[in-house]
Amino acid sequence: MITEIAVVDIVPGQEQEFEVALHKAVSTVLSTADGYISFTLQKGIENPSTYAFLIEWETLEDHTVGFRESELFTQWRGLIGKHFSSPPRVEHWQGISL
Amino acid sequence: MITEIAVVDIVPGQEQEFEVALHKAVSTVLSTADGYISFTLQKGIENPSTYAFLIEWETLEDHTVGFRESELFTQWRGLIGKHFSSPPRVEHWQGISL
Repeated sequence: MITEIAVVDIVPGQEQEFEVALHKAVSTVLSTADGYISFTLQKGIENPSTYAFLIEWETLEDHTVGFRESELFTQWRGLIGKHFSSPPRVEHWQGISL
Repeated sequence: MITEIAVVDIVPGQEQEFEVALHKAVSTVLSTADGYISFTLQKGIENPSTYAFLIEWETLEDHTVGFRESELFTQWRGLIGKHFSSPPRVEHWQGISL
């Protein structure tokens, strides 16, 4: 399992509309992707128009190839992308037990 | 509850030594702080010398005032700070249910 952390800046004032669109995008698009495990949403305290998506995938390629190169990605961005004020900053992480 | 996400760049080659020091720092220092709930460690896939700490706190002030202004913070940084190659990038987040 790997974790995608995507930090997304939303056009100020569109936060509520974005959250409604995101709910639909997660439940009808993202959650149907192969290798998708879970989605957690965090809203910035210092920057309330910034959100962090924490998305767990079975493998890195389930996100970078399977999802991003599929029609689902077009649908996902079609639902939420109009609210972005800048391109998302995306990195992938591997959980480590200390 | 709020989540602190801290992204930390480690001097390349010191990753294993850092993880050992971090284990001690979490178990003997961070976990004794008032308002501390949990710590999760993620290691970068694109940048393997970069780590993300996901730390849950009862309140924002438990981190920004209670911990950062205490002697515990000096001990915490004393154990792990020598491995940092740049200042950590820290933001605070509020979980949102869609």
